[in-house]
Amino acid sequence: MPKRFTPEEYAQGVLAGNRVLLSRAITLVESTLPSDQTLAHEVMELVLPHAGKSVRVGITGVPGVGKSTFIEAFGNYLLEQHGKKLAVLAIDPTSQRTGGSILGDKTRMETLAANPSAYIRPSPAGKTLGGVARSTRESILLCEAAGYDVIFVETVGVGQSETAVHEMVDFFLLLMLAGAGDELQGIKKGIMEMADAVAITKADGANLHPATSAQAEYQGALHLFPLGASKWSPRVTVCSAYDKTGLAPLWETVMDYVTLTQENGSFAQRRKDQNLHWLKHSIRQSLEERFYQHPFVQEQWEQMAQQVVQGQKSPFAAAEELLQGTK
Amino acid sequence: MPKRFTPEEYAQGVLAGNRVLLSRAITLVESTLPSDQTLAHEVMELVLPHAGKSVRVGITGVPGVGKSTFIEAFGNYLLEQHGKKLAVLAIDPTSQRTGGSILGDKTRMETLAANPSAYIRPSPAGKTLGGVARSTRESILLCEAAGYDVIFVETVGVGQSETAVHEMVDFFLLLMLAGAGDELQGIKKGIMEMADAVAITKADGANLHPATSAQAEYQGALHLFPLGASKWSPRVTVCSAYDKTGLAPLWETVMDYVTLTQENGSFAQRRKDQNLHWLKHSIRQSLEERFYQHPFVQEQWEQMAQQVVQGQKSPFAAAEELLQGTK
Repeated sequence: MPKRFTPEEYAQGVLAGNRVLLSRAITLVESTLPSDQTLAHEVMELVLPHAGKSVRVGITGVPGVGKSTFIEAFGNYLLEQHGKKLAVLAIDPTSQRTGGSILGDKTRMETLAANPSAYIRPSPAGKTLGGVARSTRESILLCEAAGYDVIFVETVGVGQSETAVHEMVDFFLLLMLAGAGDELQGIKKGIMEMADAVAITKADGANLHPATSAQAEYQGALHLFPLGASKWSPRVTVCSAYDKTGLAPLWETVMDYVTLTQENGSFAQRRKDQNLHWLKHSIRQSLEERFYQHPFVQEQWEQMAQQVVQGQKSPFAAAEELLQGTK
Repeated sequence: MPKRFTPEEYAQGVLAGNRVLLSRAITLVESTLPSDQTLAHEVMELVLPHAGKSVRVGITGVPGVGKSTFIEAFGNYLLEQHGKKLAVLAIDPTSQRTGGSILGDKTRMETLAANPSAYIRPSPAGKTLGGVARSTRESILLCEAAGYDVIFVETVGVGQSETAVHEMVDFFLLLMLAGAGDELQGIKKGIMEMADAVAITKADGANLHPATSAQAEYQGALHLFPLGASKWSPRVTVCSAYDKTGLAPLWETVMDYVTLTQENGSFAQRRKDQNLHWLKHSIRQSLEERFYQHPFVQEQWEQMAQQVVQGQKSPFAAAEELLQGTK
């Protein structure tokens, strides 16, 4: 058991950009021990006034899209060309990470991991989506307080974690592969409409032509869809982590988005909405956890749910019975 | 106060297709009086085994798209050409319905309203989305038990009710107008990806050409998006309520969808998922209602939410404080 620090020691270490203290603080917000959680709340309260000054970018895409190499190339570009400090976090509640995932596979991001301006933190293992979403969101704030001005939050592109990431970032980037319909395999319905940009990866060699065709097609398609509150028109770009091409236009896209939304107020509004979202979401999760763990519900749930699913019982009547039993 | 019937009387009346009893039963499921609710549960239990045998079609589109005239034309087509019995329900929690809405404006659907094979029920006034969703869902089942084999559930296309309707129908139809980008005005982001079909309305006269161009554009765009669990490729059609054209291809589209999804099992699966959704949704709503009405939360909420929104307090810490206060 490593020595515990006081909340002030954690906060001062984080604010000084001390990577060891930052990692320890993140471990603290990831912990489920009640005493750690109390301490974590105190640390968060001290760092909160110093957080918020970054661009938070969510990055998703199915395995095979080249997410790890993309993040390494794009990350190095930001460090070298723009002098950024970059933190890379991940949401992956399954915790059994397989091939194609950057953060379980450090060898594929050697240069980024070795750069003192980059901080890379794998997803905690064995946590639920709710737990990992919470700790990732607090980790973003800790990294910001430690001076990182670009935060990538990576997700795997096949589950529900995209929605959670979308609710904690400023900009949501979907990576896709070109290739006649195949590009859709594994992408969940609804994720396209969350994207602020789509980047077609591996646009090099023989792939370049299909990639630029796909770019034109998707750009045309996205223009037909309604805009969100930000009034931003999603863009489609092509890039190659291998040739290191397309990275500048992509960063320009992110910056154009930030400029537009800061000017029209939706950047700040989105963050406010997200804060409120996590308050309500967190309340909802606790209420449901309490309910579903109630002995009466535990005992009745299987049978009741089956009757409802089979259409033998009204869902509303069943809900009322279960709620009565927990009062 | 009208005379109350026994649960058996209601159920027998509904099953016999008695429109007066059907209307009275729907009034019962709409009621918020506890004694009515108990009675409604008993009626629903008797009726449930006889429900389910319809095609449930959700219809949405912004005001001005011609929803009322479309529903009248499409409804009459189904009655006359296919011998269907049609029930038209609505979800509109705002209750202050303005122009362009069919159900507050019976004069625009005279012929349908006059047809004994059609049953038209306006949305109850002054209810919340949760309340109206619940009563609409039970009304669907009552109409099915009364022998209606096609159910339209209309929604207004600008709020959150689309998601609720999507969760209670088999097929979701989005009505759109052709016209260079304007067609997107008012449609909420995300609704396009819910649609099983898009029908471009008012495709007549000088509008026919723009409508068929829009059809081609949208059809191309939708092919680029991932399919849902049903494996159905959304289709785009054109129609004119004035010329009575495009109604047959649209109904064919619905029937093709039903055939495909019944064969691959996703039709039944979607209904099962929806049953479970409403059970969980209903539990969630009650838990949250209880929580937000708690005196401690009522007293603390404003200030706490403000601090969270402004980034002065962690949403997770605030949630915990509020939850502690209600224990």
